[in-house]
Amino acid sequence: MAKVDPWNVEGNVNYDDLIKDFGVKKISPELKKKLESISKSKGVELHHLIRRDVFFVHRDLDKLLKDFEKGQKFFLYTGRSPSGKIHLGHMFIWYFTKWLQDLFDVELYFQFPDEEKFLFKKNLSYEEVQKNLEDNMKDVAAIGFNPEKTFFIINTRHADILYPEAVKVAKKITFSNVKSAFGLTDSSNIGSIFYTSMQAVPAFLPSVGKEKKLNCLIPHAVDQDPHFRITRDVIEKVGYPKPASIQCKFLPGLRGFEEDSKMSSSKESSSIYMSDTPNEIKKKINKYAFSGGRETLEEHRKYGGNPDIDVCYNWLLFFEEDDKVLEKVYKDYKTGKLLSGELKNILIEKLTKIVIKHQEDRKKLKDLKKYLRKEKFFKKG
Amino acid sequence: MAKVDPWNVEGNVNYDDLIKDFGVKKISPELKKKLESISKSKGVELHHLIRRDVFFVHRDLDKLLKDFEKGQKFFLYTGRSPSGKIHLGHMFIWYFTKWLQDLFDVELYFQFPDEEKFLFKKNLSYEEVQKNLEDNMKDVAAIGFNPEKTFFIINTRHADILYPEAVKVAKKITFSNVKSAFGLTDSSNIGSIFYTSMQAVPAFLPSVGKEKKLNCLIPHAVDQDPHFRITRDVIEKVGYPKPASIQCKFLPGLRGFEEDSKMSSSKESSSIYMSDTPNEIKKKINKYAFSGGRETLEEHRKYGGNPDIDVCYNWLLFFEEDDKVLEKVYKDYKTGKLLSGELKNILIEKLTKIVIKHQEDRKKLKDLKKYLRKEKFFKKG
Repeated sequence: MAKVDPWNVEGNVNYDDLIKDFGVKKISPELKKKLESISKSKGVELHHLIRRDVFFVHRDLDKLLKDFEKGQKFFLYTGRSPSGKIHLGHMFIWYFTKWLQDLFDVELYFQFPDEEKFLFKKNLSYEEVQKNLEDNMKDVAAIGFNPEKTFFIINTRHADILYPEAVKVAKKITFSNVKSAFGLTDSSNIGSIFYTSMQAVPAFLPSVGKEKKLNCLIPHAVDQDPHFRITRDVIEKVGYPKPASIQCKFLPGLRGFEEDSKMSSSKESSSIYMSDTPNEIKKKINKYAFSGGRETLEEHRKYGGNPDIDVCYNWLLFFEEDDKVLEKVYKDYKTGKLLSGELKNILIEKLTKIVIKHQEDRKKLKDLKKYLRKEKFFKKG
Repeated sequence: MAKVDPWNVEGNVNYDDLIKDFGVKKISPELKKKLESISKSKGVELHHLIRRDVFFVHRDLDKLLKDFEKGQKFFLYTGRSPSGKIHLGHMFIWYFTKWLQDLFDVELYFQFPDEEKFLFKKNLSYEEVQKNLEDNMKDVAAIGFNPEKTFFIINTRHADILYPEAVKVAKKITFSNVKSAFGLTDSSNIGSIFYTSMQAVPAFLPSVGKEKKLNCLIPHAVDQDPHFRITRDVIEKVGYPKPASIQCKFLPGLRGFEEDSKMSSSKESSSIYMSDTPNEIKKKINKYAFSGGRETLEEHRKYGGNPDIDVCYNWLLFFEEDDKVLEKVYKDYKTGKLLSGELKNILIEKLTKIVIKHQEDRKKLKDLKKYLRKEKFFKKG
């Protein structure tokens, strides 16, 4: 049985089990249609990550869309806990978030909880997290979120805004609540016990002091659900609507589902970082990518490969937007027409383009000021 | 057996038991002499609250004074958790703190943990605490601490400074640690569990980012010792010296030691508030003050009263600075020369003067800006 919580994803994740355990809802065909019709009305296609069930479950997304049609506004909230370099397994969620922001033309609150990993990882120093923070913020800024409508929240630096709200949430959460949700014990440090309150705040921060409360939609990977489950349990008691969420599966690591069900910053051989060179990308994929191909060329040509367990195919599922290209790869690989090396090359080309464009966009950034304007947008506590 | 922790003082407190339970040290005759000689060298008398053993125990005060003689600077740290009106039971500690500040000419960091009582009292609202905060800050400012060397710290508003440091402390404290120290349970809210980290920060805040770390002296009532015991246990692990403390007994409530071992904001009949009118002071003392006098005038004249259990005498011990006046009261009351009504009048006159002067000083305050200059004095986290 796989273990999935906000700090650990171990084993081959069975998403059907997770749906039951966490109590999240599958995105139904009706909801998908709804999202498609909204997209089409804005002249864009439904996002491939929804089409392909990478974003596969949700909480109250149907309700949020109904409210939206009635004129009830919402904002987006997502985040990044800075603990290492940014890799593709982070990026796809934010690319998707940008798509949502553009589609609905809404505000995005992007949290950098720079105390979280410090509190949860024994040997991680505060200074190291701060260094990662500066680096990670640049990667997020390079994505090109609407600068008029995007606000970075840094937990330690903006604690004068977050902490007064966090204590209101914290008063409604007992140790028992977090114990069961996060597997904390009496030996857990008291910062880690308090932490979830800080993660809850952006889910209602834009509504603080406002008479009309806004809805909130959180795009996130399914392992973060325990946080927002707790947030949803208490948020109405502090006067705000429950945040909705749209949740995705993990991008598997290079070594494949069995060994590497979620790409991890700390495993070099698992990840393609946004700072990798074209040569590194090529070498890592060629060396580590778990293949669904046959042992020999002859067998592969004869029996075909298995794209479903092949990491290259599965990554294309995340990053190749064109369904026709993807389908052709699937078919050709399965029938043995496409060889593993050829499939790797298709992926290498695709990812190299994405990473190089990202690096160029990152270089063009002057500073992060446009995203760090707390005085202008947050009411002081 | 009395119960004493930062949120409860119940029963007739046996201070000898507390010394054993908490592991604090009595102020020895040698230490008292040391303090006296320092005072005399500055041309002032040893403070009457030390002379009379109201400040009666300490941690590492001897070490701090030795360091000070060798040129090692220290600062003062005390605070007020705003939960109601300020009464005399709060003020005497701060009058004493001002005496210390003037004597040693040192900085004072005065914390207003405006989330504490909100987190620990089920029915206290955040808004009510904020109202109390504004009121309480004026009372503290009216004491006349050196404006050049005194800094107010408000936990919620200055959380951008406190929280980054608090998480470093919090990482070193487990739930087990706070459970035993504060009597917390699995049903305690996670804000209350985290709270002690915020109270720890001012004990080292002036040293943050500085190469030479300062010593810290905390004057406080003995019930706060559990917080600083925890602070002392972990503070060296985050790179700062253990804070020293000088700790006092409680001003008993009007109804006397048995019923009212600590003056409480929430009991009108227990307290003289700094906002009371002369008439209120007179009425409350005449009506409620527990008397050590005899049943009848005749008996009192014949056998004398018992000043040791008499609230009026015990309050004079806190507020009448002149030893000779106090001794005369003691003797005259014990021999029956001084009647209970006369003793009450002496106290009424003394306290009325103190309260009226305080109210005048409070009225003269323009604003609190001189004490709220965080940008100038704290390094940003």
